[in-house]
Amino acid sequence: MPLPDALFARLREIFPDDALAIRETERRAFARDNSRYEQLPEAVVFPTSHEQVEVLVRACREHRVPLTARGGGTSSTGAAVPAAGAVVASFIRMDRILHIAPDDRLAVVQPGVTNEALQQALAPHGFFWAPDPGSAPWCTVGGNLACNAGGPRAVKYGATRDNVLGLRAVAGTGAGFVAGTHTTKDSTGYDLTRLLVGSEGTLALVTEATLKLTPRPPVVRSLRATYRDTASAAQAVARIMAQPVTPAALEFMDALALKLARDHAPDADVPQAGALLLIEVDGTPETVGFAQDAVARAARGEGLVALDIAADAGENAALWAARKALSFAQRTVTEHKINEDVAVPVSRLPALVDGAQALAAKHAVPLVCFGHAGNGNLHVNLLPRDVDEIERAYAALPELFALVLALGGTLSGEHGIGLVKREFMPLALEPATLGLMRDIKAAFDPDGILNPGKLLP
Amino acid sequence: MPLPDALFARLREIFPDDALAIRETERRAFARDNSRYEQLPEAVVFPTSHEQVEVLVRACREHRVPLTARGGGTSSTGAAVPAAGAVVASFIRMDRILHIAPDDRLAVVQPGVTNEALQQALAPHGFFWAPDPGSAPWCTVGGNLACNAGGPRAVKYGATRDNVLGLRAVAGTGAGFVAGTHTTKDSTGYDLTRLLVGSEGTLALVTEATLKLTPRPPVVRSLRATYRDTASAAQAVARIMAQPVTPAALEFMDALALKLARDHAPDADVPQAGALLLIEVDGTPETVGFAQDAVARAARGEGLVALDIAADAGENAALWAARKALSFAQRTVTEHKINEDVAVPVSRLPALVDGAQALAAKHAVPLVCFGHAGNGNLHVNLLPRDVDEIERAYAALPELFALVLALGGTLSGEHGIGLVKREFMPLALEPATLGLMRDIKAAFDPDGILNPGKLLP
Ligand SMILES: Cc1cc2nc3c(=O)[nH]c(=O)nc-3n(C[C@H](O)[C@H](O)[C@H](O)COP(=O)(O)OP(=O)(O)OC[C@H]3O[C@@H](n4cnc5c(N)ncnc54)[C@H](O)[C@@H]3O)c2cc1C
Ligand SMILES: Cc1cc2nc3c(=O)[nH]c(=O)nc-3n(C[C@H](O)[C@H](O)[C@H](O)COP(=O)(O)OP(=O)(O)OC[C@H]3O[C@@H](n4cnc5c(N)ncnc54)[C@H](O)[C@@H]3O)c2cc1C
Repeated sequence: MPLPDALFARLREIFPDDALAIRETERRAFARDNSRYEQLPEAVVFPTSHEQVEVLVRACREHRVPLTARGGGTSSTGAAVPAAGAVVASFIRMDRILHIAPDDRLAVVQPGVTNEALQQALAPHGFFWAPDPGSAPWCTVGGNLACNAGGPRAVKYGATRDNVLGLRAVAGTGAGFVAGTHTTKDSTGYDLTRLLVGSEGTLALVTEATLKLTPRPPVVRSLRATYRDTASAAQAVARIMAQPVTPAALEFMDALALKLARDHAPDADVPQAGALLLIEVDGTPETVGFAQDAVARAARGEGLVALDIAADAGENAALWAARKALSFAQRTVTEHKINEDVAVPVSRLPALVDGAQALAAKHAVPLVCFGHAGNGNLHVNLLPRDVDEIERAYAALPELFALVLALGGTLSGEHGIGLVKREFMPLALEPATLGLMRDIKAAFDPDGILNPGKLLP
Repeated sequence: MPLPDALFARLREIFPDDALAIRETERRAFARDNSRYEQLPEAVVFPTSHEQVEVLVRACREHRVPLTARGGGTSSTGAAVPAAGAVVASFIRMDRILHIAPDDRLAVVQPGVTNEALQQALAPHGFFWAPDPGSAPWCTVGGNLACNAGGPRAVKYGATRDNVLGLRAVAGTGAGFVAGTHTTKDSTGYDLTRLLVGSEGTLALVTEATLKLTPRPPVVRSLRATYRDTASAAQAVARIMAQPVTPAALEFMDALALKLARDHAPDADVPQAGALLLIEVDGTPETVGFAQDAVARAARGEGLVALDIAADAGENAALWAARKALSFAQRTVTEHKINEDVAVPVSRLPALVDGAQALAAKHAVPLVCFGHAGNGNLHVNLLPRDVDEIERAYAALPELFALVLALGGTLSGEHGIGLVKREFMPLALEPATLGLMRDIKAAFDPDGILNPGKLLP
């Protein structure tokens, strides 16, 4: 399905020289994300301004050609994989930080800046941006916005949606618009800003974002608690979240996750245990000790094997590195990982972990559980190693989602829906809710050109 | 414009006995809110279930009769004043707290529960719901959601939009739906929950809400800082917000606000000063002192007259009571108060306060400034006392909004748009943004029956 000649000529005008890539070798790099899907785009463009994006969307709309935005291409759901016959708009050249205002606790950035580059620019001002996905070195603010990305810190500081004030964007109609404000409170009309967050590039392309910053607490302390079994650790999570001091991170790893981390990072001194909680608290030098004590008290209880309190975060750096490497470490088990990021209310974590392990036993597929337990958001990953296990894993998946929904949970806590979960959306959402989502899609993108086939079933 | 007979008969069926009010004396109580607008509804109904609300909306839709939801009727913008010929749905009988889950930091409530009743129910569990408008004893969660209400605590804990997880509602189509989840993170489709927050009953009627709870810090301390002039106080606000310890409240009062408070509460020991900041910090017994010191350090500076540190919040209770009474105290100046709640980025507060006072001088109208300075959200109220001043005040208003927008601010920080500001929406929002809002309205409410004439120009 090659592009219509007229559109192709128009793209050439809008995107001169190397701002348009058409050679297959060049396009190949934009065919995949971190999912198992793949589709070669017909052309890749590299916008450098909002105005260019407006013209681009109008041109694609005129020719009814699909258009997929792309940041770092780290999505785990196929959200960044283009439809057949599509143009990809890569935002990697719109990577400027336009303005940092510590007094107003905000930064204005272009969408292509990586999460890590932004954090580095903010650090000297004593601030950070809360979303901290494991993919920070590669993923972009635009991708974080489009997926409502989270990370370990979300338990205390919120995910992307909680940390954005306003956006500039181009709807699927081709109309550019501004949403939100530069203020931390706003009751002026409908909230288009948070509607775009999590919309996976299906409503509008974001060309500028005003982000809410958080002051960086001067001191961080880490705790490491190991437990006899997963149920004891999951119960400790619920206890920690029921007391007043909110940890700055509360990560869970089951026995298999620990084994993978040990194999992947033999020097990191990863303990052998039924399950582990990696906990951070933050504050000032004077106050952090009290926070640590409060959380440590809650971490103690039935099934605790050991509680190690690191004097500073550095002592646990190797363990954190091992935790962050888990996404990759799973590759040593299989190339066919099925990556889930379900979330349940925190009190239901013990039931989720138990239930997931029962499913793994029933279907005889290796399963690893780890992730952002303080938000009830676990990566419940199936790791099938051969054709039979793959088949059984896909049979287990609907049962896993049914379990999560029965526990009052949700299909995705942070990765989004993309291609991989959209067929499960009707399990989670009633027809009326899906109907309203479709109507909103039609309002922003009447011809359905923006990232078609994603999010909505 | 009486109701069509068929609709009237239908309402009788859906709302037996005293669940339908038709006598003028009864309807009169539902004709006004806290604005200067008034319109008698044709009928008032008192739903007690979600299902009833679905049937109600469908019946009104069938007859193209306007329908306005109502909570406590405390809106300052005319948002709760019905259109001509309308039915009012009063939610005061749907006032149950269905479920409090401290472990999951959430509560499920019906929309008619008052903010204060909810806080009282949460207190024994050690939690609170962050929105704390001055109207808490009378306003409802449904009204808080519809206006994105805030209050003093929003500076640290966020406004309504930041503290809601999910909703059950009935769209203007008559379709009931569920939005959001019971989890603190969610990337499963478009965010209908936060779209409804701040929509002033124009998209859907909320019949149930899942609210995010915050652990109540055991200790609160108050500080009271007086300044030579408003500019010094405004600069202190910017300094306080630029350091890491976020106060739990940061309220500003100018000299006239202090005078009104003094007259209204002579026993409250309200100081005479150019301006005052009322500051709260919270924490544990061990940590609150450090927070207090950090904020006190930032409060000090050019123009500070006195800094009083109360040993506990009780010592400042009288001052807080005076602050909360300011909405009413203004009535002693005039019955024609023009109540604004603009917001600007915190660093622009000095310019806002200066500029507003310059406008008051230019147009020769009394003006009082007070409010939630930590969010840059000030009540800049014009207090015209006679016909001439009223005329001059309305002439000053567009200049005030132009100033706010030029400072990067927004028309409303917490009260919403309603009837009183909708003609100013095109100043704040571009046609493309307003166009998308209109399309969203059409998707939820194709026949425009829900609270017509509000929010959108
Ligand atoms: C090792 C690893 C660890 C990870 N850890 C986490 C984690 O801890 N937490 C988490 O939440 N996720 C995590 N992820 C998933 C992924 O990194 C995030 O979803 C991230 O937000 C994607 O950003 P990206 O720039 O790579 O976006 P892409 O993958 O390029 O695109 C993702 C989506 O964003 C859209 N998009 C991109 N830019 C724009 C724009 N300017 N306007 C509109 N839409 C746009 C795309 O169309 C697509 O729908 C991880 C992934 C990997 C590979
Ligand atoms: C003395 C005083 C102090 C105040 N202080 C503050 C303050 O500090 N901060 C602040 O933000 N506001 C404040 N307000 C404004 C007001 O109290 C808030 O806007 C409040 O949220 C309104 O709630 P309510 O229940 O009275 O709603 P109402 O006035 O009855 O209605 C307001 C809007 O909500 C809609 N609505 C009500 N229930 C529903 C429902 N179930 N579904 C859909 N829509 C619904 C109505 O249609 C209307 O559009 C104050 C008002 C007064 C009088």
